[in-house]
Amino acid sequence: MALRAALRSKFSLSALHSQLSPCSSHGKVCVSPVIVSQRRNNSTSPKIKVDFDQSTGVAVMCLQSPPVNSLSLDFLTELCISVEKLEMDKSCRGLIITSGQPKVFSAGLDIMEMYGKSPERCGEFWKAVQEMWLKLYNSNMVTIAAINGSSPAGGCLMSMTCDYRIMADNPRYSIGLNETLLGIVAPFWFKDTMMNTVGHRNTEISLELGLLYSPADALKIGLVDQIVPEDQVLAAATKTMTKWLAIPDHARQITKSMMRKPTIDKLTSNRDADIKNFVGFITKDSIQKSLGMYLEMLKKRKA
Amino acid sequence: MALRAALRSKFSLSALHSQLSPCSSHGKVCVSPVIVSQRRNNSTSPKIKVDFDQSTGVAVMCLQSPPVNSLSLDFLTELCISVEKLEMDKSCRGLIITSGQPKVFSAGLDIMEMYGKSPERCGEFWKAVQEMWLKLYNSNMVTIAAINGSSPAGGCLMSMTCDYRIMADNPRYSIGLNETLLGIVAPFWFKDTMMNTVGHRNTEISLELGLLYSPADALKIGLVDQIVPEDQVLAAATKTMTKWLAIPDHARQITKSMMRKPTIDKLTSNRDADIKNFVGFITKDSIQKSLGMYLEMLKKRKA
Amino acid sequence: MALRAALRSKFSLSALHSQLSPCSSHGKVCVSPVIVSQRRNNSTSPKIKVDFDQSTGVAVMCLQSPPVNSLSLDFLTELCISVEKLEMDKSCRGLIITSGQPKVFSAGLDIMEMYGKSPERCGEFWKAVQEMWLKLYNSNMVTIAAINGSSPAGGCLMSMTCDYRIMADNPRYSIGLNETLLGIVAPFWFKDTMMNTVGHRNTEISLELGLLYSPADALKIGLVDQIVPEDQVLAAATKTMTKWLAIPDHARQITKSMMRKPTIDKLTSNRDADIKNFVGFITKDSIQKSLGMYLEMLKKRKA
Repeated sequence: MALRAALRSKFSLSALHSQLSPCSSHGKVCVSPVIVSQRRNNSTSPKIKVDFDQSTGVAVMCLQSPPVNSLSLDFLTELCISVEKLEMDKSCRGLIITSGQPKVFSAGLDIMEMYGKSPERCGEFWKAVQEMWLKLYNSNMVTIAAINGSSPAGGCLMSMTCDYRIMADNPRYSIGLNETLLGIVAPFWFKDTMMNTVGHRNTEISLELGLLYSPADALKIGLVDQIVPEDQVLAAATKTMTKWLAIPDHARQITKSMMRKPTIDKLTSNRDADIKNFVGFITKDSIQKSLGMYLEMLKKRKA
Repeated sequence: MALRAALRSKFSLSALHSQLSPCSSHGKVCVSPVIVSQRRNNSTSPKIKVDFDQSTGVAVMCLQSPPVNSLSLDFLTELCISVEKLEMDKSCRGLIITSGQPKVFSAGLDIMEMYGKSPERCGEFWKAVQEMWLKLYNSNMVTIAAINGSSPAGGCLMSMTCDYRIMADNPRYSIGLNETLLGIVAPFWFKDTMMNTVGHRNTEISLELGLLYSPADALKIGLVDQIVPEDQVLAAATKTMTKWLAIPDHARQITKSMMRKPTIDKLTSNRDADIKNFVGFITKDSIQKSLGMYLEMLKKRKA
Repeated sequence: MALRAALRSKFSLSALHSQLSPCSSHGKVCVSPVIVSQRRNNSTSPKIKVDFDQSTGVAVMCLQSPPVNSLSLDFLTELCISVEKLEMDKSCRGLIITSGQPKVFSAGLDIMEMYGKSPERCGEFWKAVQEMWLKLYNSNMVTIAAINGSSPAGGCLMSMTCDYRIMADNPRYSIGLNETLLGIVAPFWFKDTMMNTVGHRNTEISLELGLLYSPADALKIGLVDQIVPEDQVLAAATKTMTKWLAIPDHARQITKSMMRKPTIDKLTSNRDADIKNFVGFITKDSIQKSLGMYLEMLKKRKA
């Protein structure tokens, strides 16, 4: 439980910043006025802003790790701390996850955490990815992804852990598990999560081709549940949350657990093997080389 | 096998009533003239009317337990007896299930069987619910649900056990597993049956929100196979039955068993645990209290 | 491994014919000019023509067993040899399967192999059917079915083993697992393959009714991925292949294996039992009789 310890100590540190770092909204309104009005608990960190509205029981978690909310070890750790804290707060019944960065919900796993790193560090990183998935997919809260930007790879995974997905209807945004495009492979629990969302065949073709879907196409296959104009994503999420919170919590939670437990158990009983498998794969020379080429390509594109 | 014994003794009693109780159709034509014409075997009871047409090999089972075909222990027992009797009759190849009550196919499990009852009685009730599902989901006959009214909860379950579902295209009718709305939880075999019908994601969202679908929306997700004008439900079922009976029985039966056996085996190997789980849940104070509030609400609505 | 030996000896024989038997295209263009232009390896046999284009890494396998590409033991053996040969050639990355016979992709398993044959022969035949499925469903190559004609039963199975299915948009063509219509039963791995393609409910109703779908209906349920005008099937397959080959092979292959391995393992660990089950079923008097009646019906239809 080294990670847990790390999470908690990190958490303590990040709490110090709570009064100092306002939500940098980068041209987006991250928190609706209604929710802000009665908020009790601004446990913010530099990279994650949580607004919890005690009157509604709903927390809005705004991802604000520039430039594209890449899921680094640090960011994942903060995310897990934030989710765990809300989970333990009985008065928090619903969680909306959204982005404070322009055009991107989350760009997915931070490639820098997988490139040129020691096996130990890679393993630590992967454990944090697992932890994020376990916490969110298994959450007792109603979780809604307010996907206000592109959401590839790990960003798509995070979205799929939620109970409901609302995406901005902007054709320049895309969502999907595109790992194969980078020469890497989505592990079995990414695959299981996607199968539970869009079925076997859609998952097979998505993963083999590394498909990224436009919001409209994502809606067609059920990868998102709703698309709305870009400026209405958070409002739609808030409205949908109200509907979900009308359901008795205990019945909804038992039902959610019944639906997801087999998938969760598969990972919890194989965490170490999954880490070992990831580390063995990602530290291969051939994989490191292809990640390096991908990073070079990104650099050139920027320049 | 106490239930079996009960079923058989019950059966003997109900057979006495066969000549006495004509189908009370409550404004609906429950049995088409064609089918009536050659019927051989009117094993009717006060609450279930079976018309078996020897010339076609098709039985029409009309549910007529006022006011809304609630699945009480008595009603389930009669239902199981009727199905078992037809199952054992080699000349009966197809079964159409429909309602003789206005506006309702079946309102689902009778809440009075779960409220203020002893654990023993609750267990007996649940065993009958299991038995109904096992008999219908595992039937060698072609089974078609002619859903001429609303079909929530247990009514939806009964519909889903059939090989084919035709629903009246009346937007005031609805169908779905809405248990969570009452604060109770659909057990794993309800969930499995729904997953086999509409897939994992539709089941997850349906069960967590306790969704009731209009006929048109039910058609969209595949919860029903066909919607027709209200006065044509039984005719459409009869027509569809002809198509199914054109398939060699033995090949169809082996195929049906191959598709459903894993789901059936899961319950048959866990019946006692499932009963224990249900009884433990339903007799909880908190659940009893929320059922009580629901019943109060129903009473007030009537008054 | 008697089959393997048979396959290899057969292979040696068929190789002798490679220079002798040009593709009899029966009014269809089986191989696009582009692909022909640089082809290196014309391992043709009388019934299967393989054109491998070294410059693209794509092989086109043209089925040309008159009149309807029935899957006889001989034809299956040749098919397995051809696939295995391409599989072992590292430079071959993609395989397009299409038909050189008019109006038919493949009529499926050759009924003559199941009628009036000894149990030993039936078992040998079934092992070859298994082998075909295992080789194709498990292939490391990108496999695309260019379905330029009807594709019932075993023809549909072969199509479903591929990574992608493109069908001629001709309403006179149909595709599906229609075994029950003949009084026989699709085995569990046919069922599993179909479930992986179109989901549980579509499979249940398809198999129980032995449904054959028009190209448009097949597209609707996902049994094929694309329909195109009849003369563009192979061109569309070639174009799609380019897209698939842009994906890094190793990532795509690991992903494909992750998706399909559980289904493949189910058969590989039950091959003998599955053969025994098939032989026991197919040699039954009642089944032989119904096959005989079917063959009579076919004869009369011809006359």
